[in-house]
Order: sequence, then C-alpha cells, then structure tokens
Amino acid sequence: MKKKLRLGMIGGGKGAFIGAVHRLCARMDDKYEFVAGCLSSTADKAIASANEIGLDLSRSYPDYKTMAIEEAKRDDGIEVVSIVTPNHMHADPAIEFLNKGIHVICDKPMTSTMEDANKLAKIVSESKAHFFLTHNYSGYPVIREMKYLIKNGELGKLRIVKGSYLQGWLGSKEESTGENKQAEWRTDPKRSGTAGAVGDIGSHTMHLIEFLTGEKLKSVAADLNTFVEGRKLDDDASILIRMTNNIKGNLSISQVATGEENNFKISIYGERGALHWHQENPNYAILCKLGFANQIITRGGSMLKEGSLANTRIPPGHPEGYLEAFAQIYSDAADVILNKQNKLDLLDILPNVEDGLHIMKFINACVDSSANNSNWTDLSTIK
Amino acid sequence: MKKKLRLGMIGGGKGAFIGAVHRLCARMDDKYEFVAGCLSSTADKAIASANEIGLDLSRSYPDYKTMAIEEAKRDDGIEVVSIVTPNHMHADPAIEFLNKGIHVICDKPMTSTMEDANKLAKIVSESKAHFFLTHNYSGYPVIREMKYLIKNGELGKLRIVKGSYLQGWLGSKEESTGENKQAEWRTDPKRSGTAGAVGDIGSHTMHLIEFLTGEKLKSVAADLNTFVEGRKLDDDASILIRMTNNIKGNLSISQVATGEENNFKISIYGERGALHWHQENPNYAILCKLGFANQIITRGGSMLKEGSLANTRIPPGHPEGYLEAFAQIYSDAADVILNKQNKLDLLDILPNVEDGLHIMKFINACVDSSANNSNWTDLSTIK
Amino acid sequence: MKKKLRLGMIGGGKGAFIGAVHRLCARMDDKYEFVAGCLSSTADKAIASANEIGLDLSRSYPDYKTMAIEEAKRDDGIEVVSIVTPNHMHADPAIEFLNKGIHVICDKPMTSTMEDANKLAKIVSESKAHFFLTHNYSGYPVIREMKYLIKNGELGKLRIVKGSYLQGWLGSKEESTGENKQAEWRTDPKRSGTAGAVGDIGSHTMHLIEFLTGEKLKSVAADLNTFVEGRKLDDDASILIRMTNNIKGNLSISQVATGEENNFKISIYGERGALHWHQENPNYAILCKLGFANQIITRGGSMLKEGSLANTRIPPGHPEGYLEAFAQIYSDAADVILNKQNKLDLLDILPNVEDGLHIMKFINACVDSSANNSNWTDLSTIK
Amino acid sequence: MKKKLRLGMIGGGKGAFIGAVHRLCARMDDKYEFVAGCLSSTADKAIASANEIGLDLSRSYPDYKTMAIEEAKRDDGIEVVSIVTPNHMHADPAIEFLNKGIHVICDKPMTSTMEDANKLAKIVSESKAHFFLTHNYSGYPVIREMKYLIKNGELGKLRIVKGSYLQGWLGSKEESTGENKQAEWRTDPKRSGTAGAVGDIGSHTMHLIEFLTGEKLKSVAADLNTFVEGRKLDDDASILIRMTNNIKGNLSISQVATGEENNFKISIYGERGALHWHQENPNYAILCKLGFANQIITRGGSMLKEGSLANTRIPPGHPEGYLEAFAQIYSDAADVILNKQNKLDLLDILPNVEDGLHIMKFINACVDSSANNSNWTDLSTIK
Repeated sequence: MKKKLRLGMIGGGKGAFIGAVHRLCARMDDKYEFVAGCLSSTADKAIASANEIGLDLSRSYPDYKTMAIEEAKRDDGIEVVSIVTPNHMHADPAIEFLNKGIHVICDKPMTSTMEDANKLAKIVSESKAHFFLTHNYSGYPVIREMKYLIKNGELGKLRIVKGSYLQGWLGSKEESTGENKQAEWRTDPKRSGTAGAVGDIGSHTMHLIEFLTGEKLKSVAADLNTFVEGRKLDDDASILIRMTNNIKGNLSISQVATGEENNFKISIYGERGALHWHQENPNYAILCKLGFANQIITRGGSMLKEGSLANTRIPPGHPEGYLEAFAQIYSDAADVILNKQNKLDLLDILPNVEDGLHIMKFINACVDSSANNSNWTDLSTIK
Repeated sequence: MKKKLRLGMIGGGKGAFIGAVHRLCARMDDKYEFVAGCLSSTADKAIASANEIGLDLSRSYPDYKTMAIEEAKRDDGIEVVSIVTPNHMHADPAIEFLNKGIHVICDKPMTSTMEDANKLAKIVSESKAHFFLTHNYSGYPVIREMKYLIKNGELGKLRIVKGSYLQGWLGSKEESTGENKQAEWRTDPKRSGTAGAVGDIGSHTMHLIEFLTGEKLKSVAADLNTFVEGRKLDDDASILIRMTNNIKGNLSISQVATGEENNFKISIYGERGALHWHQENPNYAILCKLGFANQIITRGGSMLKEGSLANTRIPPGHPEGYLEAFAQIYSDAADVILNKQNKLDLLDILPNVEDGLHIMKFINACVDSSANNSNWTDLSTIK
Repeated sequence: MKKKLRLGMIGGGKGAFIGAVHRLCARMDDKYEFVAGCLSSTADKAIASANEIGLDLSRSYPDYKTMAIEEAKRDDGIEVVSIVTPNHMHADPAIEFLNKGIHVICDKPMTSTMEDANKLAKIVSESKAHFFLTHNYSGYPVIREMKYLIKNGELGKLRIVKGSYLQGWLGSKEESTGENKQAEWRTDPKRSGTAGAVGDIGSHTMHLIEFLTGEKLKSVAADLNTFVEGRKLDDDASILIRMTNNIKGNLSISQVATGEENNFKISIYGERGALHWHQENPNYAILCKLGFANQIITRGGSMLKEGSLANTRIPPGHPEGYLEAFAQIYSDAADVILNKQNKLDLLDILPNVEDGLHIMKFINACVDSSANNSNWTDLSTIK
Repeated sequence: MKKKLRLGMIGGGKGAFIGAVHRLCARMDDKYEFVAGCLSSTADKAIASANEIGLDLSRSYPDYKTMAIEEAKRDDGIEVVSIVTPNHMHADPAIEFLNKGIHVICDKPMTSTMEDANKLAKIVSESKAHFFLTHNYSGYPVIREMKYLIKNGELGKLRIVKGSYLQGWLGSKEESTGENKQAEWRTDPKRSGTAGAVGDIGSHTMHLIEFLTGEKLKSVAADLNTFVEGRKLDDDASILIRMTNNIKGNLSISQVATGEENNFKISIYGERGALHWHQENPNYAILCKLGFANQIITRGGSMLKEGSLANTRIPPGHPEGYLEAFAQIYSDAADVILNKQNKLDLLDILPNVEDGLHIMKFINACVDSSANNSNWTDLSTIK
C-alpha cells in the first residue's frame, strides 16, 4: 500500500503566511502526513496553532530541540521537517534535525548570514539526510520545460539574461504599522540578514536564472536603494550581472514598485532563440526561434515529460498556479526520499544546499558592491 | 480540535481524470479525510485503484449499494460522498446515499436524462442531506467578485451576455482510438445524454452566466453541429439566448475548435458598465464603468471578502488556478455541512439541485431547438 | 516622372469624420493629389470646408452633378472620386461619375436600399471605370497574410467562423443630443437603411469573414435588438450563420456594448489549424497548427509578399494602424487604375461592387430573419 | 486659404528607410509640400531618387551647400529642411541651413561627436530658425497623456524608472552581408559615433524617460557589450541610472536580443502611482494608483486634450501607430513655425537642441563608464 512520509514543521503558527502554504503544498499530492510541529517559539501560541490546524497536541513541541529529540526516539517519528521561520532561525533547527538523520525542507534564503550558511553547508555535506530549499518558482512546469529547451540547445549559445521581480507591498512603512509581521522581520537586519528586497526576492530571481541557464553568476555591480525613510534594509535594487560563458544581463528588484503584485519576469536570449516567462500568468512561455514566428508554449501543451520532469496534474488550459508549483518541490522531495526511479534526475534540479550557499554569496556581493560605489564584485570574494 | 469530514467516492478509479481532481481538491483545504470508495464498477480495478491511492481495502467496495449500506452502519462511516462517474451513473448512486442521509457532491451535468434529473430533484427536496454540483468555475474568486459587483449594481441594468467555451480536443475521432476513455463516454448518448459539447461545456457556460447575473435563461435558438464524421453527438454549437429581464446574448460552444485548450470566456454588459473574464488567466477581470478608464480587477487585489465569499489562500500576484477554484466548492460544502457561520450565504451561491435541473433543461432545449430548424425554444416546454 | 491620380470628393465637409480619413489615406502613399470637391450639400459649408483644407475654390462645387460635368470637361479633370456621404447618398453620385468614366471609391455599406444596390451594380457592370468599396479592414497586412495562409490550405478544410464587432458609443441616445451627427444619420432609416449596427459594423464583420475564407454566406438566423428606447434601428445583434462548404458560425454585433471602443475580432477554425485576429492590436495574429505550439504572426515579420499583396511601410515592431490599412485600399486602387503589374491580383482582393451587393443582401437577410422570429433566411431570397 | 510649408530634404534617397518615413509623415497632416532635395551624395543616385518620388528635377541638388544657397535665393524656396543622413552628416548641413534662416528637422541622435553637438548647439542658439529632433516616440498621444499625468502629480514623488529597448536585427553580422546599408553605417564608428545600440536606441529610451518625468539624468554606470564578433560598436548594454530628485533605475538596450522586433517599454513608479507603456501596442498605457484597481488608459479614450497636446486623428479603438506618432512631430513643428496658438506649449515638449546635446552626453557617459569598469560617470564630466 502507498507509503506517506511523516512530516513535521518548525514555525508556521497562527498568522504566519508561508507555513500554511507549506502544509497545503505537502498535502496536495498526498505524499506526506503532517504529524508534529513546533509551530511557534511562544508555548501558548504553539498549542493554539496546533489546535487550530488539528495537530495531535502530544506532538506539538515548545522548542525545536525537544521536538528533534522526541521525534527521533519514536518508531513513527517524523521523517521530514519543514523549516518556515524567519531567515535567522533556519540554520540551527536545520542542523539539529539533519544531525538526527531527519530530512529538511527549508524556506529561502538559506540563512541570514554567510557564517550560518557555511556552517549549515558543512553539516549537510556530512549528513545522510537530504536538504531541500523551497526556491519554489523552479517547480513551475513551464519553467522546467524552458530549462530543458535551453539544455537541449534550442536557444544556441546564451548571450543575455533579464530578470525582473517587482512588488509594491513595502511602498510605505508597513513595518511600523504593528499589523504586518512579515514586513517587520523582512526589514529587520537581525532576522532577515544584510539585505531586504535583494534577499527576499532577488534571491528567487537569481536562482531561477541559474536554474534555467545552467550557468553560474560570477560578479555583480549593484545599486541598492532604500526609498522608504527610516527603513533599515534595501527595498529596491538595480543590478548588472556577469555569468559564466560570457552571459551578461541585469536584474530589477523592488518591493516599492507601486501597483505591482508579484510581477516576476525572466527573459533568456541566445544566438538562435529566446525564452520569456511571466509568473503572474505562469502556464505560458514565449519561445523565439530565429527564422520562425514566435511560439506560445503552454503548460502540458507541448511538454516533453522526460526532459522537463514536470508533473502536470490537469490538462492544458486548466491553469495551475503558485501552489501547484510550490507543491512540486514537496512532491519531488518525497520521490527522492522514497528512492523513486527518477531520484537522480530530481536531485539534479531540486534546489539544494549548494544553490543556497551560492545565492547567499549573490546577496552579500550585491550588498558589498552597493556599499562600494557599485563596483563590480566577484562572488569568489564572498566567504 | 479541528473536525474533518469523512469522505467517500463513487468512480474515479485508475485512468480516470476527474476523480483524482476531486480527491486533490478535497485535500487542499484540509476539511476532509478520504476513507471509503467504490472506485470502479470492475471489482479488480476497484481494488487496484484503492491500493494505488492508499485507501484502506476494507472500505473499498465492489458496488455503490453495498458501500452505502456498510458505511451507513459504521459509527465512523462517511458523511459525504463524491460522485464522479459518467453522467448516466449520477442519479442512482446519489439517490442511494441521500436516502441514507449522506451528503452528495456530484459532478456535472447532473444526469444524462430529464427523467433522472426530475427523479433526483424530488429525492433531494425530501432529503435532509445536502446535494452539491461541481459547477467548479463558480469557485473562482474573481468570478465571485464579479457576481458581487453585478448584484451591487455596478453595471446598471444588464443588457447583453456573451459566453464562449472553446476546446479542440475532439477535433478528430478520438472516441475511436481506444485510448481516450473520456472521449468515448462523452460522445456516447447512452452515457452522456442527448448532447455532447453542449452537455459537457455548454452546461458550464450557461451556469456561469446565470451565476454571475442572477438572472435565468428563458429560451434558446440553437444550431448544434457534428463536424467529425460518424460522431453521435454534437461537437460544436452556436446558440442565441434570451434571459429574464430582457437580457439577450449568444453562446459559442465547441470541442472541435482546433488549437483551443480550455478557452472559456464570459462578458456581461449593462447600461453603466461591463465585466470580462477569461478562464485561462483566471486571476483577473476587466471592469468597465461608463465614463472611467477600464479597470483590471485582480484576485485578492480589491476583494470585498464579505460580498464575494471568496477564500483567497495566497496574496495577489501569486496565481491560483483551476484546482483552487474547484477546491473552493469542496471547502464551501464542508462549511455548510459543518454549520459554519456563513452557511446561509454559501447555500445561496453553491451550485445545487435546482441549478442542475435548470441546466438540464437548457441542454435539452438546445437539442430540441436545433432539431426544429433552430426555432426559439422555451425552457418551460422541457419537462 | 511619377504620375499622381487627380482625386475629387463628394461629402467630407467640416465636422465629418470619415472624409478627413479618406483624404489622409489618399495622401499617405503619395499616389493621389486632391483637386476638386463637393464637400457639402450646403453651398456655404462647401466653400468653408474647401477653404479650410486648402482646396482651390474654383473646383469646389455646389452639387455633385455640376462637379461631374465640369470635371469631365477639363483636361486636368479628376480621374477618381471618393464618395463619403451617408449611405442613401452613395448610389446617385457614384452612377453620375461612373457614367462619365471617372473611377469611384465609395464608403460602405454600398447603399441604403437593395433597389439602389441593384441599380448601382448594373451601372458598374456596364462602365469602364472601376468601383471600389472601402471595406478598409481588408487592407490590414496581417489580414492579407491570413487570407493567403487560408487559401494556401494551412488550416485544412474550414469548419467554424466567429466574428465579433463590439462598440459602446451608442449606449445611450446619442442621436438626440444634437451634437453627434454620425449618431443621427446612422440611426435614421432614411439615411442609413433598414439596419443600424448590422449595417454599419455587421457589414464589416461579414465582409472580412468572406474575404478571409474565400467562402460565401448562405443563410442567417438573426436576433436584432434595440436596447436604447426610442431608437429606430437595431443597436445590437446576435446572428447564427451558415456558409458555403458547410462552414458554421456566429456573429456578435453591438454598438451598446458598454466600455468597448472598436473591439473587432475574427477567429477561423479549420480541421488542421486556426487563425485569430484582433483589430485593436492589428499587427499580430495567432496561427494554430495542429500538433504545434501556437504561433504569433507579426506584420512584416513573416510576410509572404507575393501571396499577401501587402505593402508594409515600416519594419516589424513599428506598429501600423487603422489609417495605414485604410490607405492600403487607396494605394491598391491607384495601382489598378494605373495598370501596375499586380493589377489582376489586386482586382481579386479589392472590395468591389459584387461584394457590396452581397453584403447588402446579408444586411437585409438579417433584418428579415429577425422580423420572422429569427428563422433561417437564405440570401437567395433577398432581391 | 490654408498655408503649407515648403519642405526640403537632405538624404533619404533610394533604399534609405528613414527618409521615406519622414516624407510620409510630413504628408500625413497636410501641413507641408515637399519641393526640393539633395537625396543622395552621389549625383546619379540623387537624380534617380528625385525621379522616383516625383520631385521637380530642377530642385534636386547635387550637394547640400548648393541647395542651401539656391533655395535661399528663391521666393518660393524651402522654409524647412529635413536632415535624414547618417549621424556624422547631421551637423554640417544643419548649420548651413540654419545660417540661411531655414528651419531644421533633424534625425536623432543629434550628431556623431560631442564636438559637432556643441558646435551645432551654439549655432542654434544664435539662429532665428527652429531646430527640432525627431525623437519620434514623444509624439505618441498616450505618451503625452502620461507626461501630463506625471506633471499633474498623479504618481506622487517619482522613485523608479525602467526603460527597455530590445531589438534582434543585429544578432549576426548584418554589416558584412553587403545588403544592409543601415547595419553598415550604424556599426561604423566614423558614421555612427562612439556608440552603437546605445546611440541608436538607447538615445530614444533615455530621451523618453526624461520627456515623461520632466527630470534629468545625472549619472550612469554602464556595461556595454559587443556580442557579435568583429563588430566595432556595442550591440547590447545594461545601464544603471541616477536622475535628479533621487530617481533611480536601469536601462536594458540591445540589438542582439533574438526574436525582438521593436520591443520598447517604459515603466515609471512614484510614491502614489505608476505608469507603463509598450511601444508595440502603443495606444494603451496602464495607470496604477495606490488603493485603486489598475486602469487601462486608451488613446483618445480619456484624453485631456489641453494637457497632453495630443492630436488624435481617429477615435479610440482605431489604432494609430508609429507613423502617426512620427507625423505628430512634423505637425507640431509646422504649428510652431506658423505661429499657431499653441506654439509655446509645443516648444515646451518638442525635442530640441538641448535635448539633443543632453542625450549626446548620455551616450558618451555610457561609453566612458563602460570603458572604466562601469564606474558611475557623471554627465557633467562630458564636454
């Protein structure tokens, strides 16, 4: 009979946004059962949160260390833990569970500091347990088809990449209203790290470009801005980038772009073709091939299943969205853990600790460059 | 602690498309646990299907009557059953479970014949159990906001409606390939009923127009066509419609529209405004108001939650899709069954047996009109 | 040295919209010089209008008959005349100039009555002069490429056509404001003819479908509506159509579709492909080919010049619009008159008197059908 | 009676693209008559070109100096001259005609060198004749409405600008095919100047941002690239920009962006709103206002005529394009020269010698920055 993985969660209590998303996505493809949690660092709130979502209170823990110890003891203890706390609280719990051989699915960016990132990377390399990062946009089927097309040479040698991730929700001082917890911690250097918008959504942008192209960022020249007075971290950035194999490009990152919801766009240009994708209508991409009319790729419509490793749940024209793409990461992580046939292929595309470490270097290089008059800053200088 | 409803399913075995969709959607908002099923009318396949999805084999039944009897006996028996069989197998199981006081969530169209539809409607009216139809497009948050705006008078007195539902998957004789079960039964009058495309997707179109406008179809002048040689039911239709309160309009329905995936569009025009929606990018609508620039409504972006009764799981710009809208019907049905606070409002908008009966009359009126030289045919003449 | 055709105009005085459009379009490709006119039926206004646009007053005439006589006498008399008056004033001037051997470019619909249409058609058939109708949408380069693709068999055998032409400018009783001359005559049966919206824009829609497909309309089942109280002609219509070679479809025509500007769309579906075009963004079409991703055709981007006979003035991506398409009719008419090499091909696609007569039958068939309970009405019954 | 301006032209002979565009645009609104030219620097070709377009051969000149002298002598000599030669041939003819009191309409960028630009600027400042630059994108009606909305404070204090101008036509070595004259001179430093793509289309982008915002560029950090081997000038650039009043942003400029036709987009974000425009569908803009649904502005649909100074020739929904916008510059220049009522307002928005000089500094600052490791380079350092 079908086996489901036992899943626990750190963070994600009442009022948290991303915790509920992780749980929904774990349920979607029916490969997990959610059985334990430390949903809040406040004991009362942890219990209230557990009650609200129907978690067995005997497996609702007051702190993550206790949870790791107790769950590791049980025969039916959790096999996977999701870490959905603010950035500064990723590394320690992750290390605790990895040391107990429990697989970790961790929100991005990987940590708040390079020190934590390096420490965690070392532990992961020594652990038998898997570590996955929810760079969830890489779970969109059309994105995976784009990756496959690029790998397959459809665009020829790559030349230019453009990434643009524009939101408007931090256009005024949301972090001071007392009503927006996410605004509070995302603009707080202690919890978020050295970058604001660049850390939160710049990280997604750069990861997705590397995911699609199979190439690595080498250096950045960044202009980070803080438009909202009194804010402690960047809320906007323009970044020039240079990648391996002479790819050039730029990124536009903003959380003060008035009127934007989650306007995340990627364009990749090669000598013989180009690909364009827009997250707000994610079931489509435009494929340009030199000498032909531009084509509209649709999710499932022209899918090369082996190549793209994409799981399309419903037929073309029936739109899938953000949650389905996010759930894809959970589904794939389960397949890896359960040693399904496509394990090696999935390990190749699932965001892992090396991606996390590299994106942490990207974030820190942007901050350094901006502090140094936007000088070109090599990722190799970030330790 | 949180209560989940115990759910069973009739149909939806291996290879079926919509059964898996129903199960996924029941899981999405964590208000159901799936515990029993009669997944196939073939005993072996029922067991294999149960095994595949991890259903306890002791609650996998060989036929729906046995299932109804056995589950009704149990203290932990199912409280809700989903019926996801072809149209001709909706009425009998639905009646069986309703008679046992078990709530029914049934796929559309409601039945294959008017006789079945009337019989079922009578049973529902006498039962204490609820009966819901998955006219799933009414679960899209933007659709619900549109309904609210219209009810609120934003468009003024309504004048014109346009519905267009175009697919291309039946462009050649798919039902004869031996590889497309859905094509087989949907083009088979015994299983599907008197209409093909009009029954399958015309039903969605007309329901959504009535859902949005709050008005009822009165008569149709229909031209049903069968473009694929040897096909037994219509695969294309153009339909003139007249509704209550002097609303006029037309419908374009096709499953042989080459290149179309699931191109379902609705436009509603009133004296002072208009609304437009496209299912393939469903998080947006266009609102026209006389004397103002047209506006782009986004899911969650300008949502009037009380009015629209819409459950938005993630922020604007993070697209939700077909599955989320479908899951909304499940979520709302659970809230009704569990007597949640918004029960009465939800009963007002959830597709029910009367909607089902009315849409059956629409289907039969189209068939009659087309058989009579496209004469205007009143729904009151359909018994 | 380059020869320009000497052009005159009937109608198009101060305050008229379409006269200025005709003059601009005649100038655009530098194949005409505008030298004479009877710009208004009121003498004072004719002179004032001539003055305003810089016309030599000695060739500004008080009535079209005098103009025909005088211009025919001159060695440098006009070779072509544009007729841009309301519908009921098309036939008589056209006949006058044709009888003098002067070519005619006439606005659409051809006349206000079938009687006039038949009379004019007879004269044209006997005249050595050419007669062209400004069914201007057939001048769009992308439309011409679509026609070529269809003729070339890219869509396979045609099945379904959809035409939709929606405007909102007559949503309230504009004809009674005293400030909208066009609204006045277009809703006046004496000047416009038996149909309102169907005559004005339904005529464009049906012409373009026939132009693209190369097939002819056979019969209609029409529901014409007048939503604005007291209006004398239809302002909205839904029409079922049947064409030669078993093509089926429907038309949506409205001038009370709130919020619409000039939303004219055409879709053509065949067994192996489909084409879609939207006038409000006219430099693009979508080409569907069975088994391939949908393609975006761009003006000039993939143009087959011989086939499409399209004159693209500027490169792809530099949008051309309504005026350029309208000017194409003028440019082509000049090439025909000047016996340019492509004369025969152009005569094949330029809207002519037979098109005009056929579209007049379409208009009258719609009116008849609607008056007879939307009965199917054959164009052969219209005399 | 209506007065038309007598127009001459330098350049624009057979095979040239932009000369024909200038002539068509001068004709469009009927404010000019084209009477003299030096269409080519080769005598034979000048005559052949004159013949082809119907220019009186007695006013077809072998060189621009002769033309300036002869035309200045005539009573009916030209009043305006269009200069449509490659960049290095702008300044000398312009100076020649300005010195004769003849108005100049000059293609952009203004010159090929700063030296020429400064020299020309001095002459213009001393001349009574007007000098206009065809930064034609500022002639789009929607662009002018955007300028007006921004000036009117609809966006609040401006924060961020994004400009992207992407073409693909130089993706391979077109300049070596012997068949693309424009590619030849645009990639030739002697004729084009120090920049390639940045000079050709970067100049349009930066001008339009300044035109819209009313703010000035202060400094750039640019990464200019040459992707096509052996090419002498940049064919791609990513540029960080800083403007007056603390506006930040970036530009993406490319002529090797495979599959792009003329993809020119501008976004402007302020504290309370934003505006977005796309040249390839130029009759629309998106207006975001904080707290409201995004609005779709249409050409003519919501036009504030006084404010925007836009001349809409045809109603909303009837698309105007590139040629109409380009013609707007000619129309406005004529109104200025003829001392029409709106002369002062037009002088305020028509691209002039100061704009030209400033954009030349932008081009040179980009080249300098890129040569200096993308260091921030202030425009004040460019002399």
